Amino acid sequence: MTAQDLMARRARLLGPNVSTFYEEPLHLVRGQGTRVWDADGREYLDCYNNVPHVGHCHPRVVEAIAQQAATLNTHTRYLHEGILDYVEALTGTFAHPLDTAIMTCTGSEANDIALRMAQAVTGKTGVIASDHTYHGNTMAVSQLSRTNPPPGGYWDNMAFVPAPDSYRPLGGEGGMAHARAFAAEVEARIAELEERGHGVSCLILCPYFANEGFPALESGWLDPAIAAVRKAGGIIIADEVQPGFGRVGTHFWGHQKAGFVPDVVTLGKPMANGHPVGGVVTSAAVMAEFRTRFRYFNTFGGNPVSAAAAQATLQVLQDEGLVENARVMGDYARDGLRDLATRHDCIGDVRGSGLFFGAELVLDQDTKQPATAFAKRVANEMRQRGVLLNFLGIHYNTLKIRPPMCFSQVDADQMLETLDQVLSDLPLVA
Amino acid sequence: MTAQDLMARRARLLGPNVSTFYEEPLHLVRGQGTRVWDADGREYLDCYNNVPHVGHCHPRVVEAIAQQAATLNTHTRYLHEGILDYVEALTGTFAHPLDTAIMTCTGSEANDIALRMAQAVTGKTGVIASDHTYHGNTMAVSQLSRTNPPPGGYWDNMAFVPAPDSYRPLGGEGGMAHARAFAAEVEARIAELEERGHGVSCLILCPYFANEGFPALESGWLDPAIAAVRKAGGIIIADEVQPGFGRVGTHFWGHQKAGFVPDVVTLGKPMANGHPVGGVVTSAAVMAEFRTRFRYFNTFGGNPVSAAAAQATLQVLQDEGLVENARVMGDYARDGLRDLATRHDCIGDVRGSGLFFGAELVLDQDTKQPATAFAKRVANEMRQRGVLLNFLGIHYNTLKIRPPMCFSQVDADQMLETLDQVLSDLPLVA
Repeated sequence: MTAQDLMARRARLLGPNVSTFYEEPLHLVRGQGTRVWDADGREYLDCYNNVPHVGHCHPRVVEAIAQQAATLNTHTRYLHEGILDYVEALTGTFAHPLDTAIMTCTGSEANDIALRMAQAVTGKTGVIASDHTYHGNTMAVSQLSRTNPPPGGYWDNMAFVPAPDSYRPLGGEGGMAHARAFAAEVEARIAELEERGHGVSCLILCPYFANEGFPALESGWLDPAIAAVRKAGGIIIADEVQPGFGRVGTHFWGHQKAGFVPDVVTLGKPMANGHPVGGVVTSAAVMAEFRTRFRYFNTFGGNPVSAAAAQATLQVLQDEGLVENARVMGDYARDGLRDLATRHDCIGDVRGSGLFFGAELVLDQDTKQPATAFAKRVANEMRQRGVLLNFLGIHYNTLKIRPPMCFSQVDADQMLETLDQVLSDLPLVA
Repeated sequence: MTAQDLMARRARLLGPNVSTFYEEPLHLVRGQGTRVWDADGREYLDCYNNVPHVGHCHPRVVEAIAQQAATLNTHTRYLHEGILDYVEALTGTFAHPLDTAIMTCTGSEANDIALRMAQAVTGKTGVIASDHTYHGNTMAVSQLSRTNPPPGGYWDNMAFVPAPDSYRPLGGEGGMAHARAFAAEVEARIAELEERGHGVSCLILCPYFANEGFPALESGWLDPAIAAVRKAGGIIIADEVQPGFGRVGTHFWGHQKAGFVPDVVTLGKPMANGHPVGGVVTSAAVMAEFRTRFRYFNTFGGNPVSAAAAQATLQVLQDEGLVENARVMGDYARDGLRDLATRHDCIGDVRGSGLFFGAELVLDQDTKQPATAFAKRVANEMRQRGVLLNFLGIHYNTLKIRPPMCFSQVDADQMLETLDQVLSDLPLVA
C-alpha cells in the first residue's frame, strides 16, 4: 500500500479536502518517545506533536489504558473514583478558585461549554476572540475562527481583535504600550457588542497566543484587556489546549506565565497523551451556575478509561520532571536557534517558551517582510531530512517547534543541525 | 470510600446536578459481558448499557486498544490504514450512496456536523426534530432538545413535531393514518420555517424514536413525512446512536428497519464499545459539499487507536453473530414480558425490537394513564435486586431494557423473574 494508494482511498472513503501534512504526506506506523517511523521503516524526529505529550506510546499511559479498559468502562451516572482522583489532582495544579471540572472528549467540546458558562454567569452573549485564532470545530466554536470563516457568516454576537504580534507590535511600540493598544481594541469591541445589544460575556484566548505565532509578551501584558472585559461584566476564558500541562516550561499553565487567573480554563490535546480527553476547569460558583442552568451529560466524558489515561499522563509528567525538562531543553534549543540566526539572515526573530517555540522567517531583517513560501519549503525539506516540524503565525512564516515533552539534547542537536543545513541549502525566495 | 463519600467528593469536584442513576447510586468497579460488580463485590445483571455494545470489557476490543496504543496514536494529518479499513468496513453495512464517513469522538460532535451538512447541501437553515428527543450536548445540538430547554431559548430556525406514540396515536388511529397525521405536523412546521425565512434544511430523528419510547411503527411509516421534507428541499438525518450497530436485531441500522435511506447518518455510543468514537456517514456528494465549505479537522477523531477499537467492535459483532442474538433474545424476552402482562395489569404495552425493548406501565389499561412514579420505583427496586434497567418515554413510564448484545437466555430469565417479583411486591401507585 503506497502513500498514493492511501491518498486515493482517503479521497474515496473520507471525501475531499481532508488535510495532510507536507507536500509528500507521511504514512506513519509506529512511535516511541520523540521518534516515529514510516511504513518503509524510516525514522523521524518528531518536533511537532503535542498530543503524545509525555512521548509517543508512553508505557505507563498505555498500561493504564489497557488495565482500566479490561476492568470497567462505564459513564459518570455511576460513581467511580477514577474521575474524582483525577479532577482532584488536576485542580491541584490550579490556583484557587479554579477547583472544579467537567471532563469532555475534546477541546472543542470544552470550548463549547465554556461559551455557555460565560452566558450563564454574565447573562450576556457577546464573545471577543483574536482574529487569528482557532478554538475548535463545533458549530458554535467554529464561529470563533477567523482563519476558517463559517460558510453562513459570523453570528452578530462575535467580535474580533487584532492578534498580538510582538515582532510588529500594534502602534509600533512593544511592551505595555502594545498591551494598552491591544486593550483599546478590546474596549472598542466591547462598545460595539453593547451597542448591538449583546454585551460582552467573555474574552476567549489562548494565553500563549499559540496560533497567532506565540508572541513574546511579558507577564501582566494582558492585564489592561482583562480589566476592560471584567469592568464590562464579562469573564475570561483561557484556552490552554496548546500551552497547558507544562508545555511552556516555566509554569504549568499558560495563564500562570501570562500572570493572570482566568474564570474558565479549557483543556484538550495533550491531556491524556492521545486518548480523547478534554476538560473545563472553573470555580465552584461558575460551575454551579452552569450546572443549574444546563443539564450537561457527556457519555464518554470522564469515563474510567479516560480518567485513567489522563491520570497516568499527569503522573508521568510529574514523576519524570518533564516540565523542568521543557524549560531546560527549550532554553537550549532557542539558544541554538539564536546561534543559527547569526549565520542565517532569514531568521528574523526567535521566540517561545519551554517546548513550544520557533523562528520567524523573513525576506529582509529591516522590512521584516514575511518569508511565507520559504517557511513552507523549509518545513517540507526538514521532513525529507527526517525532522518533523511545521509553520504557523499571522503570516504563516514562523517555524512551529512543539515536540513531546521528553525532547532531549540529542534531539535538539539533531533538529538544529538539520535546520542549519536546510537553511544553507534552500534559496531564500518570496 | 462509601457511596456517600463519593457523592460528597463529586459535589465538591464536579459541581451540583451531575446526574446519577437510581435513588441509591451505584459504585461500579468491574464489568464483564452482561455483568457488573460494585465496590462491595455485589454482582448486577446489566440490562441498560448499550455503550459496552459487545459486552463489558470484551477481550478482543481491549486487546485492540492496548496493542494500537502501544504502537502509534497520531491523527489524520498523517496517513494511516486503520481509519480507511474501518470506514470501508463500516460503509459496507450501509446501502449505496452512503459510502463516506467522518470519524468524531462523540455522537454530539456527529450531530453537530450533520446539521452543517444539511445547511451546506440545501442552503437552508431550518431544522425539524421531535418534541421528546435528545441528540447531544453541544450548543447547537442542545437546541434540538425539548426535554432540556436551552437557557437562552430556542433559535428561530428550530421547529418541533409531536413525538410519535403508537400506544396513543396522534389522531386516535394507528398505522399509516398515524403516519399521515405525523407528516401533516411536519408539513405545518415546514410552512412555518419557510414563513420565517429559514426554509427546511433537515428533519433529524432517531429512526427508532428511542427517547420517545420506541413506538411500534411499521416499515414505511416515516415515508409521508420524509417525502414532505424532501419536497421542500430538505434532507433526512438519521441519528443511529441508539438503534444502530444491530441493536434492533432485525436489521443492522434503525433506518433499514424503518424502511428508508437517509441522506446523513450519525453514530455514537456503541461504536467502539466505550472508547470515545462517533461518526457521520453520508454520500460522496454530501460529503464533498461539506468538505468544500467547512474546513473540518478533529484531532482525536479517527486516530489509530479509535479506529482499532471501532474495528474490533464491528468484527466481534459479526464474528459472534450478535445481531442475530439480539433478534432471538429480544423476541424471547418480549414473549416473557407479554407473559408477565397476563398476570400484571400495570403492563399496558410491550414493544421494541432486538435488544432495545420495554413495557409501558399504566395505572389503568383502559384510560392508559401513565404509571410514571411507579415505573421509577420499579427501576429502583430492580436495582436493589441486582438487575439494572431504567425508564424513558413521553411520560417516563416505559421500562428501558437495552443490555449488551451478548445478552443470554439465562440473563433474560433472571430479568423476567426479578421483574415478576418486583411487580408483585410493589403497590401500583400514581
